[in-house]
Amino acid sequence: MASAQAVSDQITSAFSNLPRSQKLVARFVVDNQYFVAFASVAEVAQKAGVSAATVVRFCQTLGYEGYPHLQAAIRQGFSRFMTTAQRLEERLTAPVSEDDVLAQAFSTDINNIKYTIELIDPVTFRAAVDEISRAAAILVVGGGISAPPALFLSHSLQVIGFPVRVVTSGGIPLSLELSALKPGDLLICIGFWRYFREAVATMRWAREVGVTRIAITDSEVSPLAQLADYAFVTTTDSIGHSVSPLASIALVDAFVAALSFRRPEKTLAALRKVDMAYNESNLLLEG
Amino acid sequence: MASAQAVSDQITSAFSNLPRSQKLVARFVVDNQYFVAFASVAEVAQKAGVSAATVVRFCQTLGYEGYPHLQAAIRQGFSRFMTTAQRLEERLTAPVSEDDVLAQAFSTDINNIKYTIELIDPVTFRAAVDEISRAAAILVVGGGISAPPALFLSHSLQVIGFPVRVVTSGGIPLSLELSALKPGDLLICIGFWRYFREAVATMRWAREVGVTRIAITDSEVSPLAQLADYAFVTTTDSIGHSVSPLASIALVDAFVAALSFRRPEKTLAALRKVDMAYNESNLLLEG
Amino acid sequence: MASAQAVSDQITSAFSNLPRSQKLVARFVVDNQYFVAFASVAEVAQKAGVSAATVVRFCQTLGYEGYPHLQAAIRQGFSRFMTTAQRLEERLTAPVSEDDVLAQAFSTDINNIKYTIELIDPVTFRAAVDEISRAAAILVVGGGISAPPALFLSHSLQVIGFPVRVVTSGGIPLSLELSALKPGDLLICIGFWRYFREAVATMRWAREVGVTRIAITDSEVSPLAQLADYAFVTTTDSIGHSVSPLASIALVDAFVAALSFRRPEKTLAALRKVDMAYNESNLLLEG
Amino acid sequence: MASAQAVSDQITSAFSNLPRSQKLVARFVVDNQYFVAFASVAEVAQKAGVSAATVVRFCQTLGYEGYPHLQAAIRQGFSRFMTTAQRLEERLTAPVSEDDVLAQAFSTDINNIKYTIELIDPVTFRAAVDEISRAAAILVVGGGISAPPALFLSHSLQVIGFPVRVVTSGGIPLSLELSALKPGDLLICIGFWRYFREAVATMRWAREVGVTRIAITDSEVSPLAQLADYAFVTTTDSIGHSVSPLASIALVDAFVAALSFRRPEKTLAALRKVDMAYNESNLLLEG
Repeated sequence: MASAQAVSDQITSAFSNLPRSQKLVARFVVDNQYFVAFASVAEVAQKAGVSAATVVRFCQTLGYEGYPHLQAAIRQGFSRFMTTAQRLEERLTAPVSEDDVLAQAFSTDINNIKYTIELIDPVTFRAAVDEISRAAAILVVGGGISAPPALFLSHSLQVIGFPVRVVTSGGIPLSLELSALKPGDLLICIGFWRYFREAVATMRWAREVGVTRIAITDSEVSPLAQLADYAFVTTTDSIGHSVSPLASIALVDAFVAALSFRRPEKTLAALRKVDMAYNESNLLLEG
Repeated sequence: MASAQAVSDQITSAFSNLPRSQKLVARFVVDNQYFVAFASVAEVAQKAGVSAATVVRFCQTLGYEGYPHLQAAIRQGFSRFMTTAQRLEERLTAPVSEDDVLAQAFSTDINNIKYTIELIDPVTFRAAVDEISRAAAILVVGGGISAPPALFLSHSLQVIGFPVRVVTSGGIPLSLELSALKPGDLLICIGFWRYFREAVATMRWAREVGVTRIAITDSEVSPLAQLADYAFVTTTDSIGHSVSPLASIALVDAFVAALSFRRPEKTLAALRKVDMAYNESNLLLEG
Repeated sequence: MASAQAVSDQITSAFSNLPRSQKLVARFVVDNQYFVAFASVAEVAQKAGVSAATVVRFCQTLGYEGYPHLQAAIRQGFSRFMTTAQRLEERLTAPVSEDDVLAQAFSTDINNIKYTIELIDPVTFRAAVDEISRAAAILVVGGGISAPPALFLSHSLQVIGFPVRVVTSGGIPLSLELSALKPGDLLICIGFWRYFREAVATMRWAREVGVTRIAITDSEVSPLAQLADYAFVTTTDSIGHSVSPLASIALVDAFVAALSFRRPEKTLAALRKVDMAYNESNLLLEG
Repeated sequence: MASAQAVSDQITSAFSNLPRSQKLVARFVVDNQYFVAFASVAEVAQKAGVSAATVVRFCQTLGYEGYPHLQAAIRQGFSRFMTTAQRLEERLTAPVSEDDVLAQAFSTDINNIKYTIELIDPVTFRAAVDEISRAAAILVVGGGISAPPALFLSHSLQVIGFPVRVVTSGGIPLSLELSALKPGDLLICIGFWRYFREAVATMRWAREVGVTRIAITDSEVSPLAQLADYAFVTTTDSIGHSVSPLASIALVDAFVAALSFRRPEKTLAALRKVDMAYNESNLLLEG
């Protein structure tokens, strides 16, 4: 399987012989492989300041049939763009010893949090807190590996008194929630590679309806980020075969804390009602 | 509200005047406040090597009506033993400025992970991986703030081919799952302060049926830990009003990685089937 | 096991020797066994026009230790008050032959519908339709055997544009929904023998909060009916070991039809949005 | 909108002038409009004993551009093939008065049950009971209006001790369940017009894996019936805008009764365990 390095090396060694306009493409591609993994030929052309035809010729000079073939090679280079089965196969070529699993898993998670805090813009964070505070109704969407942060967010918002609904599976329940979205509502969509088609369709529907959209995702060029008013990129590295939602859990916790500090009286009133309801149902071991 | 320090200080200043047997109780209580927060008078007496009557007299010497009153004071000293409303009230006396929420939330989470890795015993971890590997059927239980790690665990186990069921709410669905548990099955119960009565009842039922029990919880003396064959203590600090399940998400990720490295062929076969099913349903944006 | 007839026979044969005031109790009990199965001693005394002491003496004259013991005998007389295991044991003494299961099951269901239509008061039906039409928010609650009609109602209401939420399990999700109920909201609670404690607690909470309550249940003296503003009694006979929610499904369908005829424009607008959302997600085989 | 009668009338008035081979098609179409609503041109040709070209010429003789256009006209003729919005629009041209809603709804339901009992073949019923009895694992699938009978079936099977799982929404959860299906398992899929794409894909996947399939649906030519080993057709008429799952609820109750009579000891043991679990959790108002 090609590594990200492989495509870069290929471009680098071909670089000196490229015509000037293709050199512009070459530089852009090497510096923006993540973007190229998702962008159309027109987008790459525009960013690189050349024509689409030049981008295609660049691909052919490198020996690819066309732009999609270069793009596929770049995607293959990112382990996060593999299927889970491909990822595990790669992991198994140099598996972590069982004694080291714990240490490596937790150190990967510390890095996930450290990288993510650098990726979060405090101004965007505050703006998103504003949007959540004033939304008429909030819909949280996240399935599969994104269901845990989606549930954590919706549960926490419900506990502190927000009008929130959550959908962790697609199909009919999601369609019914979408059909009820109105301007003034807020959609918070959580999704990581491999992006689910329905998550993207959800963002698109919300945009058409005029609903504000927050995305919690794993790349600035993820389709969810591109459809969002406010996008939060979290790092999702895992030593296992899949991606980890851990950093998004940290982000959700920060959102919930900021929201409760922002409107303390409403939050306290809501928490006290929840305590009353828990007591009424005798749910807790210690009252 | 009394702080944990307050009770310690009270005991320390009374210490020199205590009779010898009460000094044994005093030392034990100061050193084991978490344990005392949950233990019965008989348990404290046994651990301290004195009679139950001595423990009661010690409480009265300090000015408490009896053991439950000392215990209540100790519990009050731990912010994690407050209701969520009480916690938020305390936070609001010295709220984190909105600019600092992100930084403090993420640094709290890094500490959660660092502390938790020290609390996990690798031998117990491997033993739990063994139990999960050989279980005839696995039931994962976790509600409220514990639902996200419960879902993350059950989803990940299902994806790599384990026979797992999950219950994130109590009542009828939980009772039906319990009624079907058999020896050879495995229960993984996730719960943090404030412990839900049904989570504890679930562990007790499983013990009676002869089902192996793993607990992911927040204290060695939590009722879930005490009913478990294998208990994993995670740190759950949050700058908000509630507790954070973040470290348990990290632990679950480590479990899933260890399980997939342990039986790579079965895992790969399961992942490939899931990929096929996703493709068949055209679920993914990129096949 | 005592039959309902058994207690009646016992009272009838003792009748002539009873003092006059106990005769009043005797007549009331024979005529209102369903009511007595749930009523307190004070309620029976009041309805029969005697003192509570007279009711107790009546019980003792018949040979029962007290009122609860008479009540228990009456309950045993109704097969619907048995546990499901007891019901099945009774069924198995004279099982339906497999060839007759289909015919008997369907003829029991026709009777369920015929009896239920006689039990529904059209005026109460229209009043309930009014309440649903004007509710600010609707919470539908039903677990176990009541989950199917609860889901059918909430799904149908959501499709035609009502602001509805549903809880089909107890515990935390139900408590959170309860904590958010406000005056102006509407609770629709569905529950049959054996009544779940949480369903009753839900009705009680809603009453305290000042929320209008509709019950769909199986007896006018069911605890849900007694806590409701509008109670609908459906017949739940089944040839199997449990009760059947079939007649409640019929009732729900009537509610949904009446609601859509009541506000056709809103209904059409909602249905068209749902169709759009289904098409957008390509959910249907035939667009 | 064309009525079913309209197409029949059109064919009837053209009949005498048709060539002999097209008369064969004409007769087949008039007698089998439901089949034609779904069948391919090849299937109609084969059933009518003519060539596909003859079927196409027949359509053109009637004035349709081709076979799909005749098929569309036939579908339009069935109100059950309308979208829910179209159905409601038609209903509103002659709405049921609110006073009559209850009576008409319940009499429609009695007819649903009467028609359905005639449509169920007792031999197929017993064969399906056999399959459920011996399945290694049972997956029940039904979304939207089919979720209530799906839940009723899975809950009832779980209570009497069957190894059953249920999926009431599509997307990831359904795909994960499908990925785990093995020969020896049983799929019970419930779906009515408008058929959901994922329900059909589920049946197809199960067939490829070699899993036995039971369909509960609304027409012998529904795509679910065509993919099933055992198909049960229920009538789904409703006075409202949608279809009613009521008759399928009756069918499920018959299945559950037959299964509990078939293996009384296992059923009783399971019911007693459920009673124990309910008592342990103190779920019931009356123990």
